[in-house]
Amino acid sequence: MDLATQILDLGASARAAARELVKLSTESKNAILLSMADALESDTSAILEANALDMKAGAERGLSAAMLDRLRLDPKRLAAMADGIRQVAGLSDPSGEVIKNWTTHHGLQISKVRVPIGVIGIIYESRPNVTSDAAVLCLKTGNATILRGGSESIHSNLAIARALQQGGAAAGLPPDSIQLVPSTDREAVRFMAEMDKYIDVIVPRGGHSLIEAVMRHARMPVIKHYHGVCHVYVDKDADLEMAAAIVLNSKCQRPGTCNALETLLVHRAVADIFLKSAGALLMEESVQLRGDEATRAILGDTVLLATEADWSTEYLDLILSIRVVDNLEEAVDHIEKYGSRHSDSIVTRDAGAAERFLRDVDSAAVYWNASTRFTDGGEFGMGAEIGISTDKLHARGPMALEELTTYKYQIRGTGQVRG
Amino acid sequence: MDLATQILDLGASARAAARELVKLSTESKNAILLSMADALESDTSAILEANALDMKAGAERGLSAAMLDRLRLDPKRLAAMADGIRQVAGLSDPSGEVIKNWTTHHGLQISKVRVPIGVIGIIYESRPNVTSDAAVLCLKTGNATILRGGSESIHSNLAIARALQQGGAAAGLPPDSIQLVPSTDREAVRFMAEMDKYIDVIVPRGGHSLIEAVMRHARMPVIKHYHGVCHVYVDKDADLEMAAAIVLNSKCQRPGTCNALETLLVHRAVADIFLKSAGALLMEESVQLRGDEATRAILGDTVLLATEADWSTEYLDLILSIRVVDNLEEAVDHIEKYGSRHSDSIVTRDAGAAERFLRDVDSAAVYWNASTRFTDGGEFGMGAEIGISTDKLHARGPMALEELTTYKYQIRGTGQVRG
Repeated sequence: MDLATQILDLGASARAAARELVKLSTESKNAILLSMADALESDTSAILEANALDMKAGAERGLSAAMLDRLRLDPKRLAAMADGIRQVAGLSDPSGEVIKNWTTHHGLQISKVRVPIGVIGIIYESRPNVTSDAAVLCLKTGNATILRGGSESIHSNLAIARALQQGGAAAGLPPDSIQLVPSTDREAVRFMAEMDKYIDVIVPRGGHSLIEAVMRHARMPVIKHYHGVCHVYVDKDADLEMAAAIVLNSKCQRPGTCNALETLLVHRAVADIFLKSAGALLMEESVQLRGDEATRAILGDTVLLATEADWSTEYLDLILSIRVVDNLEEAVDHIEKYGSRHSDSIVTRDAGAAERFLRDVDSAAVYWNASTRFTDGGEFGMGAEIGISTDKLHARGPMALEELTTYKYQIRGTGQVRG
Repeated sequence: MDLATQILDLGASARAAARELVKLSTESKNAILLSMADALESDTSAILEANALDMKAGAERGLSAAMLDRLRLDPKRLAAMADGIRQVAGLSDPSGEVIKNWTTHHGLQISKVRVPIGVIGIIYESRPNVTSDAAVLCLKTGNATILRGGSESIHSNLAIARALQQGGAAAGLPPDSIQLVPSTDREAVRFMAEMDKYIDVIVPRGGHSLIEAVMRHARMPVIKHYHGVCHVYVDKDADLEMAAAIVLNSKCQRPGTCNALETLLVHRAVADIFLKSAGALLMEESVQLRGDEATRAILGDTVLLATEADWSTEYLDLILSIRVVDNLEEAVDHIEKYGSRHSDSIVTRDAGAAERFLRDVDSAAVYWNASTRFTDGGEFGMGAEIGISTDKLHARGPMALEELTTYKYQIRGTGQVRG
């Protein structure tokens, strides 16, 4: 069977599974989840063997130590994955929730009801735990999944998917509810993206070329989990001690995450005093600074001159670009031009300035006097997350269970016809 | 300037306008709307002159009488368009509404706030009133629009857009908030669809080839207003008199609309008695019937034999396909296979059967004991509509003001950093 036919088959099976999943009660889905968690633990040795194959191939291909660490599984990480599933079983299920309910003047009872989306395609790279996290969140909300992981973790992903499928089946999971594309052929991504008949939405999580490939071919909605070029703007009326703490936390607490700070914007009126103190703290934390001329005039030549490319770069590393601006509007303009609509923060005591920033910055999460690092499903109190959407439609920012549902209108009448 | 550059220019201007629109109060937007309505009326003669050019070209191109009627404007239709704008000014503005509001254990105050989407591309055919309807609904919610109408109404569209722009400008509408693509070149659709940098969502309203062209090229979310292959399923426990009334209304009250009935499914146990009575009523209304063998065995050879193509055809005409099914599940399977996820209804006295139908049919609007004709923003009480989405993400079913917004998270802190 050629790859295109194989993907179409996965799609048709997933659609059939989705039609069964919509009938399951929350209790049934939770029982399935718990059985999947148990299977993941009882399959530990098989999964670790599969992972060893990936690790060996990764080392031979010369993956970096950081990449190999992301790829590596051990009993502790597997136990954490299983615990994650048990936690999802404990969350409340948004599917079936009545969002609104009203009666029209004809006496029609209209209910806007949350329902599963149907079939969700997840395309991701590197970390094998995404296989479990994504499948489990989709299942909790009654969706079928077609998973496409990276070639570097193919054996691990297959082993994890098999454990989930078998554990699920033992508790009544409809066949084909969770499917993993067994081929590592790049064409599989294209075939998935073109299959709008069977896949209702694709969630790509990965680098630029992966997301580009999905966007180029996709005929269905795509919810991108793209990069975060996040900003902190230190206003002229900022509490500068608070500002320094927020900048340090946003940049250094976990620089490899999408909600970490990449560009610091400072009002000219406080640039000298703020950059001197904060700059020293950042350099103590080994952060490399890249500033505009005004920044270099204050901090000296140890600060590299930022290039145009710096302003739109997601470093994911201990590097920070810095620009001095004349006012709030210039800060907002900079964020509009170079930002990625992820997370941006203003530090100020001026409530009027803060409200303008919160209104005018077109990002998923806009902060006043807080670190950008809080953009996270867990921190927001959602209990879980499939990622952070950088798109504006359907799901924006942390994407958790509710964002894996859509709605339908159920209308109950007594024979009404339209006059 | 070549067309690609021209479209990019429209996009950049629209984005700039969107950034200004987000700052307008509801009062300002309403004043702009009222001024636009006045301008439409005071420009009546210019708009009717432009429309006469389109009518003349349409007649020369041999457009059908129905098409010419859709194209035609007169003082009454223009007054209705202006009144429509005044009604939208009177609706409440969803932008700025706080959807949810909570405080995290860190003391962060998180508000999930409804905001404009940004720049909306509308691609439509034929009826020039869409130019006004779409622009006005988008403006009410704080969005900029790029409109691309059909070539047959280009002069009318340009004249209407000019009136809206000038009337709006007189009341403070930011420049370029409403723009119409002046070129009728088909390539313009492709350039718009590829311009995800400036257009946040495209709403195509039109025929199959228009929607296909948008889907093939779109790099941004598309909310399709596609066809409606709507079903009524008459269950074995139906009140047959009610069923006949619902079938007649769904099919005949306005057969050219997307929520009109196209396929009737009848439970075998009541097929004989129901089809004999309802069939006669339908034929009295000049409805052509196309049935499966079981239907023809009951109603005779005056019923044409339905082909496979009939089941997925949106007739938009006084034609009805009929199939006899063995049970509810077969009806649901038929709808899943041939339907367009628009509007489907079950007629039954059996509440259990009805609830299964409401749960299992994956359509925007699912009805129990009511006509499919109610799927409409006005009938649903939304006060207006830009159309009926046949997509599942972001907006499903009647798409009105709320569906023209997205959300952002505004987070107000007191210096919180992540530990």
